[in-house]
Amino acid sequence: MPRPDRPTRPSARSGVAPFHVMEVLAAAKARQRARGDALLLCTGQPATPAPRRVRAAAAAAAAEEVLGYTEAAGDPALRAAIAAWHRGRYGTAVTAGQVVVTTGVSGALILVFLAALDPGDEVVLARPGYPAYRNTLAALGAEVVELDCGPDTRHQLTAEMLAALPRPPRAVIVTSPDNPTGTIIDEAELARIARWCAAHGTLLVSDEIYHGIDYGRRCASALESSAAAVVAGGFSKYFSMTGWRLGWLILPEELVGPVTRLAANLTVCPPAVSQAAAAQALHPESLAELDGHVRRYRDNRDLLLEGLAAAGIDRVAPADGAFYLWADVSDYTDDSLVWCAELLDRTGVALAPGVDFDAVHGGGRVRLCYAGAPGDLAEACRRLSRVTGRA
Amino acid sequence: MPRPDRPTRPSARSGVAPFHVMEVLAAAKARQRARGDALLLCTGQPATPAPRRVRAAAAAAAAEEVLGYTEAAGDPALRAAIAAWHRGRYGTAVTAGQVVVTTGVSGALILVFLAALDPGDEVVLARPGYPAYRNTLAALGAEVVELDCGPDTRHQLTAEMLAALPRPPRAVIVTSPDNPTGTIIDEAELARIARWCAAHGTLLVSDEIYHGIDYGRRCASALESSAAAVVAGGFSKYFSMTGWRLGWLILPEELVGPVTRLAANLTVCPPAVSQAAAAQALHPESLAELDGHVRRYRDNRDLLLEGLAAAGIDRVAPADGAFYLWADVSDYTDDSLVWCAELLDRTGVALAPGVDFDAVHGGGRVRLCYAGAPGDLAEACRRLSRVTGRA
Repeated sequence: MPRPDRPTRPSARSGVAPFHVMEVLAAAKARQRARGDALLLCTGQPATPAPRRVRAAAAAAAAEEVLGYTEAAGDPALRAAIAAWHRGRYGTAVTAGQVVVTTGVSGALILVFLAALDPGDEVVLARPGYPAYRNTLAALGAEVVELDCGPDTRHQLTAEMLAALPRPPRAVIVTSPDNPTGTIIDEAELARIARWCAAHGTLLVSDEIYHGIDYGRRCASALESSAAAVVAGGFSKYFSMTGWRLGWLILPEELVGPVTRLAANLTVCPPAVSQAAAAQALHPESLAELDGHVRRYRDNRDLLLEGLAAAGIDRVAPADGAFYLWADVSDYTDDSLVWCAELLDRTGVALAPGVDFDAVHGGGRVRLCYAGAPGDLAEACRRLSRVTGRA
Repeated sequence: MPRPDRPTRPSARSGVAPFHVMEVLAAAKARQRARGDALLLCTGQPATPAPRRVRAAAAAAAAEEVLGYTEAAGDPALRAAIAAWHRGRYGTAVTAGQVVVTTGVSGALILVFLAALDPGDEVVLARPGYPAYRNTLAALGAEVVELDCGPDTRHQLTAEMLAALPRPPRAVIVTSPDNPTGTIIDEAELARIARWCAAHGTLLVSDEIYHGIDYGRRCASALESSAAAVVAGGFSKYFSMTGWRLGWLILPEELVGPVTRLAANLTVCPPAVSQAAAAQALHPESLAELDGHVRRYRDNRDLLLEGLAAAGIDRVAPADGAFYLWADVSDYTDDSLVWCAELLDRTGVALAPGVDFDAVHGGGRVRLCYAGAPGDLAEACRRLSRVTGRA
C-alpha cells in the first residue's frame, strides 16, 4: 500500500491577510444568482461597460485577429498612445519607452515591487489604504510601515510625516484620488512628497488609477513634480474597464529594463484582446462618454451622502474623487467584518468592511462604492435604514 | 536649488536572467514592421486564432456586457466547466472548488509558488526547461535546483533522480509535453514521480499547458496518480488562445484558500473578456477545430524536421508533442544568443536561443516553434541553409 498523501503545507507568506472585499463580492454574486436581490456596493465596479469605441474595436479584434503574444512591455503603439495621453493631460515629457503596459494596476505593482524592492526593505503607506498594497508587499517580503492618516491631512501622507521617520524608507506609495477614502491629496503637498523622495533616494510610487474621477479639486500627477517617481495607472476605473485587466507603469529609465525582464518571465505579456482595443479609450469621443459617467458619479455621490445621512450615517471622509465613501459606522459596530456579513445576509446589500483598509481603526468603518445605478443606491440606503433603526 | 534626483537602484532580485525569447520577439516584430520579412519561429505562437465559438462569444461579450470584476478565483461556471472537462478527459475526480482560474499559466505559477513556497525552499526542475520557472522562482526567493536531463530520459526528470537528492525538495516541476524539448514523459515514470512526491511531502507541480498537442504517445495528467499534485493548465496552447491570458490551477483542497487569497490581492481577478468566452473552447465543435490544428502541427513537424536535416541540422530531441523542436546547432555555434541575433539580422528568421532553456549546455541549442504556417517553415529552412552553408 502506498502511504497516504500528506497534505501540502501552505507557505508562511500565504498567510497574508485576506482581501475581504473579494470574499464579500463572491458571496454577493452567489446571492444574486440564488435570490436576485443583491446590491453590490462592495467593489469599485462601474455599472457601465467600456466606451463604445473600445467595445467595437474589441469585438472586431476578437472576431478577426489571432490575438497572440504581444511584446512583454505591451504593444508599442499602445505604449506610445499612453505616453502621448499623459503628456497632453499633465504637460509631462513621458516617452513611449518609459511606459510598460501591465495586467491591471495589480500586475503593475507586483512588477515594480519586485524590480525596486529587496526583501526587508521598508515601504511606507497611508492607513487607511488599499489592502492589496500591504498584502502584496508582505507576500513579496517587504516591510510595510503604515502611517495613521486622519481627517486633518485628508487621510493622506505628508512630507512632514516622511521627514519624521527614523530613516528614509525604500519606497512610499501615495494614492490620489484615494481608495478607500476618496480624498485628493493637496497638489503642493504631493509636490513636497515627490521632492522629499527624490532627495532621499526613496522611490515614490503614485497610484493614479482613479485619475479622471474628481469633482472639482485638481488632481496632479506625481510626474509633474519629479521625473524619478513611478506612476501606476490604467484603464479600469475612469475608463470603465475593470475586467479588461489593463494598466500601465510610467518608469524612470533605469527601471524599464528590470521591469520588462520581470514582466516577460512573470506574465509573458498583458491580455492581447484588451490591448487591441484600449487605445480607443483615449479617443476624444470616448473621453466625452467617460466624462458623462463622472457627472453621474457626482450625482450618485450626492444621492448616497443624503441617503446615508437619513440612515444615520453622516460622518464621511471628504469625497473629492474616485467613487467611494469612507463612512464611520462606529455607532453601530466595532467589527465591520461581521457587520458587513450580517448586512449582506439580512438585506442583500454588499459593502466593503473597513478592516480591509485599516486594520487598526477599520472596525467602525465601511467603504461604499457609488459607481453603480442610482436606483440601487437609493434602495441600498432604504435597506441600511432598517439595520440602523432609522426606517 | 533642489538636489538632482538620484537614480532608483533596481533590486537585487530584478537581476533575474532575461527571458531572451521575449527580446527576440520584440526585435522580430520590429523587423516585421520595418521590412515585412520576419519569420517568427521564436515563441510558442499558433498561426491560428481562438476557436470560432470562442471568437463569437468574445465578440458578443465585448459588444454587450459590462465585463466587470469576476470572483478572484474566476467565474464559478467556468471553474465548473474546466473541472468537468478534466474529469471527462482523464477520469479524475476534480471538483469545481479545486479549480482556480488564473491569468495564464504564468499567473498560475506565481500564485502557487507564493502559496506553497517560503524563501529558501528548494524547487527541482529539469534542465533544459522553461526559463520562466527558474527566473520567477528566483525572483520570489526560492532555491532552484536544476537536474541535467539528457536524451536517455527524454530530457525529463525521473523518480530515481529525485530519490538520489540529498533531501526531498519542497517542490518539483514537471512539464509534459515539454518546453523546449517537445518530449512526453513516460506515463509510468510520471506516476512514480507523483507517488514519490506524495510520500515525501514534496509538492508536485505538473505543467500541463501543452496537453492535447501530442502525436501518438499518451500524455497522462499527474492527477491520475496523486490527488496531492498541483496541475497548471490553460487555454493558450492547444486551445490556440495565447494572448487571451487565461489559465487554471487544479489544487489540493488545502491550497485553494491560500491561492484564492493571494489571487485577490495580487490580481483582483483574471481577464473578464477571456473568461466570458473560454468555456466555448471546451465545446465539441471547438475541440474538433483544435484537433485539426494538431494534425497540421504534425505535418509541420515533419516538414520542419526534413527541412532542418537538409540545412544540416539533424540532431533533434524526440518531438512527441507540443510544437517545438529542440535542435543541436553546436556544429555552427557555441553561443546560441549571438547566433540567433545574427540569424535574425541576416535572414529575418527568429528562433529561441538555447541558453534561455539550458544555461549550461544551451549555447549549442535552439528551439524552433512549428505552430506557424507551413510556407513560413519551408522558407525559414531555406534561409537557415544559407547560414549553415548548405544552400
